[in-house]
Amino acid sequence: MPEQQPARAWRLVLERIERDLLDGRLGPGDRLPSERDLAADLGVGRSSVREALRVLEVMGLIRTATGSGPQSGAIVISTPTGGMSALLRLQVAAQGFPLHDVVQTRLLLEDAVVTALAERSARDLTAARRIIDAMERDGLTASEFLALDAELHLALADSSGNSVVAAMMAGLRTAIESYVQEGAAALADWESMAVRLRDEHRGIVEAIDEGDAAAARERIRRHITGYYTATGLTATDDRVVAHPIA
Amino acid sequence: MPEQQPARAWRLVLERIERDLLDGRLGPGDRLPSERDLAADLGVGRSSVREALRVLEVMGLIRTATGSGPQSGAIVISTPTGGMSALLRLQVAAQGFPLHDVVQTRLLLEDAVVTALAERSARDLTAARRIIDAMERDGLTASEFLALDAELHLALADSSGNSVVAAMMAGLRTAIESYVQEGAAALADWESMAVRLRDEHRGIVEAIDEGDAAAARERIRRHITGYYTATGLTATDDRVVAHPIA
Repeated sequence: MPEQQPARAWRLVLERIERDLLDGRLGPGDRLPSERDLAADLGVGRSSVREALRVLEVMGLIRTATGSGPQSGAIVISTPTGGMSALLRLQVAAQGFPLHDVVQTRLLLEDAVVTALAERSARDLTAARRIIDAMERDGLTASEFLALDAELHLALADSSGNSVVAAMMAGLRTAIESYVQEGAAALADWESMAVRLRDEHRGIVEAIDEGDAAAARERIRRHITGYYTATGLTATDDRVVAHPIA
Repeated sequence: MPEQQPARAWRLVLERIERDLLDGRLGPGDRLPSERDLAADLGVGRSSVREALRVLEVMGLIRTATGSGPQSGAIVISTPTGGMSALLRLQVAAQGFPLHDVVQTRLLLEDAVVTALAERSARDLTAARRIIDAMERDGLTASEFLALDAELHLALADSSGNSVVAAMMAGLRTAIESYVQEGAAALADWESMAVRLRDEHRGIVEAIDEGDAAAARERIRRHITGYYTATGLTATDDRVVAHPIA
């Protein structure tokens, strides 16, 4: 079984780096040992080290520099959103996660985000407002509009202050991006949908501003399910509305 | 820059497999083309193919068989929980996600799970009840007890029917497993904590059985924050209680 040994070797490398992270020997901004040093330290081949580094890269834990001089090598980064996006996108593609469950989870997280924002005494919605203004520009294509739309929802999640929720939301959105875009293409009248989405966004931020959590929750739910229903992304289903996790 | 080309090569392989999954040419249970065929098809080295396969394996998308005969090779699987666990564990280790945000997100998801279960007209809590009974056994160590505890929360999430939420919960729990275990070790009197946790579990399931969502939510929140506070995992903080996303 010649494949078995290398399979174990890359796990060794991954476990070593995870332990170094947990113990604080490695942290954000630090440079990993070189491929050669890791291979020598652990007694594995350089190809096994490279396999482990690819895993860490896709999971959003390291950035690998190009080149091979003293400036080359992998740096620990602390922007985990990319890893979550890659994971959820692949899982939806592989049918590991049904689209329906992804949509329900998005509703659940967005509900929590607007509730937290509305209930807070101080909040910074500058980023959200800037995006809402950008969405008023003439001549935006549906695709440009939807990119801003995704940014707006993420900006709200970011300002709610929970990085795990923000990363999960980014991941869920990425996972269903192609469906959202296809949905827009399927609409007979994109322009009136754009008008409606703009109004809904302003209504959501208004409810947050007024500290009205119940209204904010109701509006975000209608906003999301309304688009999904209009574009055929999900069936009209009362249970979707009544229970965040159906 | 000799490293740059291989870095692109493994991404090519990953994108090809993702496209095949999206287009339905590959699905759960299917066998991927062999390393040699993928390498030849895409004009990349076999080491690049292996790097992409490792990424897919850690993300919980494929299972790689050992051996090199006709039965060898990678099979598409649809159990994405492992990938989410690996991602969240690594992100917490790398301080990409603060522990506080992980705990808040867990509260949010558990709240949604018990709400959905309590509001449903029919539910199957067989698995949860079996675990609750197992937790009554004499002579369980703290570590065995906490393993059953984690299983119980996952069983509830599974029976709520949303696979994304269940995977996220499993991942969050794995990410903080070492802290939970350390917390138990720090307690002066584990036995009375075990008695309390058993009572709380029965109370939560009782509220779900009675369809009392408000009580179920209140009880799961107290149960989780109570343990975390008692073990020093999180500070006593009213905002934790008042706002799922602080």
